[in-house]
Amino acid sequence: MALIVQKYGGTSVGSLERIRHVARKVSAAAKNGDSLIVVVSAMSGETDRLIEMAQELCANPPEREMDLLMSSGERVSAALLSVALNSMGAPAISFTGRQIGMLTDAVHMKARIRRITGEKLREALDGGKVAVVAGFQGIDESTGNVTTLGRGGSDTSAVAIAVAMGADLCEIYTDVDGVYTTDPNIVPNARKIESLSFDEMLEMASLGAKVLQVRSVEFGKKYNMPIRVKSTFSNEEGTLVTSERKEMEEVVVSAVAYARDQAKVTVVGVPDRPGIAARIFTSVASDEINVDMIIQNTSAGGLTDLSFTIPKTESAKTMQLLESVVKEIGAREAIVDGEIGKVSIIGVGMRSHTGVAARAFKALADGGINIMMISTSEIKVSCVVSSGEIDRSVRILHDAFELALPVEERSFQENRK
Amino acid sequence: MALIVQKYGGTSVGSLERIRHVARKVSAAAKNGDSLIVVVSAMSGETDRLIEMAQELCANPPEREMDLLMSSGERVSAALLSVALNSMGAPAISFTGRQIGMLTDAVHMKARIRRITGEKLREALDGGKVAVVAGFQGIDESTGNVTTLGRGGSDTSAVAIAVAMGADLCEIYTDVDGVYTTDPNIVPNARKIESLSFDEMLEMASLGAKVLQVRSVEFGKKYNMPIRVKSTFSNEEGTLVTSERKEMEEVVVSAVAYARDQAKVTVVGVPDRPGIAARIFTSVASDEINVDMIIQNTSAGGLTDLSFTIPKTESAKTMQLLESVVKEIGAREAIVDGEIGKVSIIGVGMRSHTGVAARAFKALADGGINIMMISTSEIKVSCVVSSGEIDRSVRILHDAFELALPVEERSFQENRK
Repeated sequence: MALIVQKYGGTSVGSLERIRHVARKVSAAAKNGDSLIVVVSAMSGETDRLIEMAQELCANPPEREMDLLMSSGERVSAALLSVALNSMGAPAISFTGRQIGMLTDAVHMKARIRRITGEKLREALDGGKVAVVAGFQGIDESTGNVTTLGRGGSDTSAVAIAVAMGADLCEIYTDVDGVYTTDPNIVPNARKIESLSFDEMLEMASLGAKVLQVRSVEFGKKYNMPIRVKSTFSNEEGTLVTSERKEMEEVVVSAVAYARDQAKVTVVGVPDRPGIAARIFTSVASDEINVDMIIQNTSAGGLTDLSFTIPKTESAKTMQLLESVVKEIGAREAIVDGEIGKVSIIGVGMRSHTGVAARAFKALADGGINIMMISTSEIKVSCVVSSGEIDRSVRILHDAFELALPVEERSFQENRK
Repeated sequence: MALIVQKYGGTSVGSLERIRHVARKVSAAAKNGDSLIVVVSAMSGETDRLIEMAQELCANPPEREMDLLMSSGERVSAALLSVALNSMGAPAISFTGRQIGMLTDAVHMKARIRRITGEKLREALDGGKVAVVAGFQGIDESTGNVTTLGRGGSDTSAVAIAVAMGADLCEIYTDVDGVYTTDPNIVPNARKIESLSFDEMLEMASLGAKVLQVRSVEFGKKYNMPIRVKSTFSNEEGTLVTSERKEMEEVVVSAVAYARDQAKVTVVGVPDRPGIAARIFTSVASDEINVDMIIQNTSAGGLTDLSFTIPKTESAKTMQLLESVVKEIGAREAIVDGEIGKVSIIGVGMRSHTGVAARAFKALADGGINIMMISTSEIKVSCVVSSGEIDRSVRILHDAFELALPVEERSFQENRK
């Protein structure tokens, strides 16, 4: 008998009919003999509806109040799913983040989980009940304030609960049937990936693939909790995200990811002295802005330009923060370019294969794509391109690494180090 | 500088525009120098929407789950009002029932308040903030489960908070501008009452006047917390509900109340032995059904009939409970009449005036109304009539005691004991 944590996203519980469908799936799994904890998101559209109401009342609503507001959507789904399960004869009980002891830090709208006490979950499971948990939410242990984990936070709730409760597997149910080599909306012949390493999934998530939230994968990696991404609406196996395994090394490039809605900020005319970059990024980081790629141009005449990318939504806040920093460090100005995006190739096999980055750059160049910034890691190569060329860049890279073919048929595989 | 608790009902916060309107009122009062705690209901329609969803999933959803579900509506209004206040420059902070330490017993959907710890409220007030509180909800201290106080429970939240925090006044804002001598929908020339005693308001509330929840008035009476009922949409003084005062004794009958949706249950052929009535009502009361009027007919041949009224919504449950009781005590059967209602006259002046009940019965008789059951207390006379005759009975009684006239012009006033 396994302990399984299942997580159902907003579209999976987006209507009463869908909640009933999820209840049937859960109930079937419970009858199978597994112990189940089910984490749910708010019904699709609900969180946006709440945010819109608040923003209509106030351009910049206090984040503490937003957390109290937004946390209500998941409570509703949890209670409704529990009601549906009970009506099908599957004993269930719903819990809020607070009730399961989901304790977080005090950073509203982006809280990090500190620990999960989980007594009530254990009690429910011991009593033979399905525990239905409102995802996305916790409480700040010191103040008792409601916190939320950021968009997509229910994935993180689910994996963290799986870890805390010693589950055998965390299943993330969503509206796609697994992780694909790239977005099938852009590349229709994208392939479903059978299994991926945590590192690859992490890169994909942080590079824009929306299937899992980055932090949930970090949790999975840190505590070695296998995560299976599956569709709520089919019975396919989905994609298993797990610790690295031998056969994965065979795959050089696993996927192409992309992110729109990025912005490039350039601080122009920065005096080239030690400590300046630190000053800039300390200021930006202090407001929890996610700085991604950073490039410093070669210094000319003691002045340099420093560029970095951020989520586009944080442009205004970033520019505001930079205003005083620019004066303080004696830079000329800060400018922002909101018309950029990022395309990336990801694969653990890059570690043992040469020529991957070169092949990517050549393919993009042959396609006439101008690469504005580059950043690489052991298992990924990312390029910043202009917004209008994102889709074409994705197609070019997907073709260049033959990702539409089954792994064993890809010619690039043979090019070993 | 006074400490005032204000409560705004569902229609008062029923849209973003109305929430803004409430925020302007609250903000004006705060600028006036008063310390404010604002208790809110769910946006109108929201609680019903949640209940309907649950009932669509399950005919008889578990009450614990219903409480978790229903409590979310008030959280949303509280957060939104706090956001609106902050946007107007009035520092505000929202709290859930749990956060203010609203501790209740374990009876879901009808929980009773045990105590309110209120530390966070005190902190907020000391910090010069308006405290916005989600009404209707609390937590069961022993389990940490979310509880709700029953329909209209936000009134009770407000008065209980006012008592716990030592407020000077509790203002209940609603969509009517005070308490009327009767429902103006039935009697267009009904008058607004300037002040009422807790006892009168209690009778009115329990006899069907929907302006305040019974338990909120009980709290007010028990702890002598004056309650002012006012309109959210006007600046009129409203009606003050307070402990009895000299001038109130002058008013013989203050108001006419009515209740539709009642049912009369009759247990037929009950053996006339001691303990039988106790057996019946213990059984009914065990399931928290509100039994109202009770009448036992004169015994004939050792058998008697026992009738009582209940809210119509509880008929099915009551009849089910009675099934075994009827067998056990050897009664013939239990029958239910759902086509009845109750009309009542209320007034503290009845204590010192004679002939009030007689005048009421005569007026109804003259109007050809058949009185099916009667119950009286020191300050009220209630009559059960058939559903179809409720409205006419109300008009007849309102006329008979000249309630449309200013108090000093009523002739019946002179008929002293």
